[in-house]
Amino acid sequence: MPVPVDDRVLVDYRTADDAGVYRLDEERALVQTVDFFTPIVDDASTYGRIAAANSLSDVYAMGGRPLTALAIAAFPARDFDPVLVRDVFRGGSDALREAGVVLLGGHTVQDQEVKFGYAVTGLVHPDRVLRNGGVRPGDALILTKPIGTGVITTALKHDRAPADAVAEAVRVMSALNRAASEVLVAAGPAVHACTDITGFGLVGHASEMAENSEATLEIETGAVPLLPGALALAARNRPGGAATNQAHFSLVVVERGPLDDDLRALMYDPQTSGGLLAAVAPDLAESVLDALARAGVDACLVGRATPPARHAVALV
Amino acid sequence: MPVPVDDRVLVDYRTADDAGVYRLDEERALVQTVDFFTPIVDDASTYGRIAAANSLSDVYAMGGRPLTALAIAAFPARDFDPVLVRDVFRGGSDALREAGVVLLGGHTVQDQEVKFGYAVTGLVHPDRVLRNGGVRPGDALILTKPIGTGVITTALKHDRAPADAVAEAVRVMSALNRAASEVLVAAGPAVHACTDITGFGLVGHASEMAENSEATLEIETGAVPLLPGALALAARNRPGGAATNQAHFSLVVVERGPLDDDLRALMYDPQTSGGLLAAVAPDLAESVLDALARAGVDACLVGRATPPARHAVALV
Repeated sequence: MPVPVDDRVLVDYRTADDAGVYRLDEERALVQTVDFFTPIVDDASTYGRIAAANSLSDVYAMGGRPLTALAIAAFPARDFDPVLVRDVFRGGSDALREAGVVLLGGHTVQDQEVKFGYAVTGLVHPDRVLRNGGVRPGDALILTKPIGTGVITTALKHDRAPADAVAEAVRVMSALNRAASEVLVAAGPAVHACTDITGFGLVGHASEMAENSEATLEIETGAVPLLPGALALAARNRPGGAATNQAHFSLVVVERGPLDDDLRALMYDPQTSGGLLAAVAPDLAESVLDALARAGVDACLVGRATPPARHAVALV
Repeated sequence: MPVPVDDRVLVDYRTADDAGVYRLDEERALVQTVDFFTPIVDDASTYGRIAAANSLSDVYAMGGRPLTALAIAAFPARDFDPVLVRDVFRGGSDALREAGVVLLGGHTVQDQEVKFGYAVTGLVHPDRVLRNGGVRPGDALILTKPIGTGVITTALKHDRAPADAVAEAVRVMSALNRAASEVLVAAGPAVHACTDITGFGLVGHASEMAENSEATLEIETGAVPLLPGALALAARNRPGGAATNQAHFSLVVVERGPLDDDLRALMYDPQTSGGLLAAVAPDLAESVLDALARAGVDACLVGRATPPARHAVALV
């Protein structure tokens, strides 16, 4: 795609990173991202909130501080309750407020299929951008949210999800990655790389980290935190994206030992508003995990990086 | 809508302005806007280019210098030629390059209905924001592009538009408002208010200016530049938005004298990538028009502001 060469562009779409980064001056760069999607839960306000948390997450994944948002919305023209529109925006505004972000404007269109999300802009110090590349062999891999939202929201669509499983998935998707990001930023050079886990699933995003690094990411499948109910629901409730992810990313994955089919499916499960996956210097991993816990983030050590091998990701 | 009180927000969606403005420091503020729409011309690359020019226009209307863009795209999953997707993006990128704007990223979804546009971010000096309010009685009203794109693109959809009328409408919609904006910014305090003419049509956007000002806008209908063919096509090719605009905005309009029905329709015709409408101190209007002409902008004097009357807009 033709783009003017511009040394102010620190990160753009070509590295499959979470957001673009544009240098304003020596101390400040814009971090910018846009995301929107169709409803994944029944409650309008919860949908709006999750859409906001998900959009903000890309800025947090780059170590940025989000400042402004523009709403992107599509609602049917007829037979659509305006109260629902208000509730979607209200849920989103709640999350923006919690993030300290102001809504500057937006664009709403008529569309048969509901869609909602935000373009978010934040600031980051140009020398302290968290990128998805830069993982070093030996790094500890830390994940800040459990996975399985794809399976659980698919089960929800078919009325097969237990209420407590849905409630916990909603809680996790609604949570901002703000606290996790602030801890990782404060950890400074101990954090070598970071991304957030969204549509490509844990393995997909891990493989992108590996491909922008000189390392293979070894994920200890038994240590990956799973949403309650996700494993039991995985056999019958695989989202469409899971098969696509597995077909695409399994080409760069090696499995070192037998792996339960449902657990494997969760490794590829597309996430909405997932956690941050960070590669941290091994000697500082414990202190980063402690700091995350003190900040209320339930993070886990989910593997380590090894010297680059033939495969981007190893499941062990 | 609940929004945190934040004195860094200089302009947001509540004044129906063209873009939001967020102060970064004493000398810089972000100008941010998002827009996207369904195809209005047959050629994919031209559609992308017009979508970009249209999105950039909101930043120009605020006196801003656009810097970065995020693409927002929706294309059907099946039976859709990937070459068309590439061409839409290429047309957009051509316009971004001409504007000196870099594409940082974007989000593309599958959708039955094609949509394309951008979230655009620019910078502006916090004290030199061009707002839609601030018109003063006596001001000259200057319009920088002819109107009629709604009528002509509607005729195009029904195969009733002469090729030369379409070609001129495409040329006008593809043109950036960059040069016009730069002249108005350079004119400094002589420019009291500015907006760009888009979906609400000339009268709709003029009425928004009036409502944020202590003035009525008097539009000399005979002086408003029309796209070639627009008047002849207006009877049979009124876009849906024209009737909506007329029903809504005619409530705040007075007509001082007889007005041809087709010419009236054009006053309310929704525009895509329309021109800037600026309110300029009367003694400096000629020099601003000269400067616009020197910059290659074919601008016209289309009326003047009067002391606030019962109506926001007068058509004379």
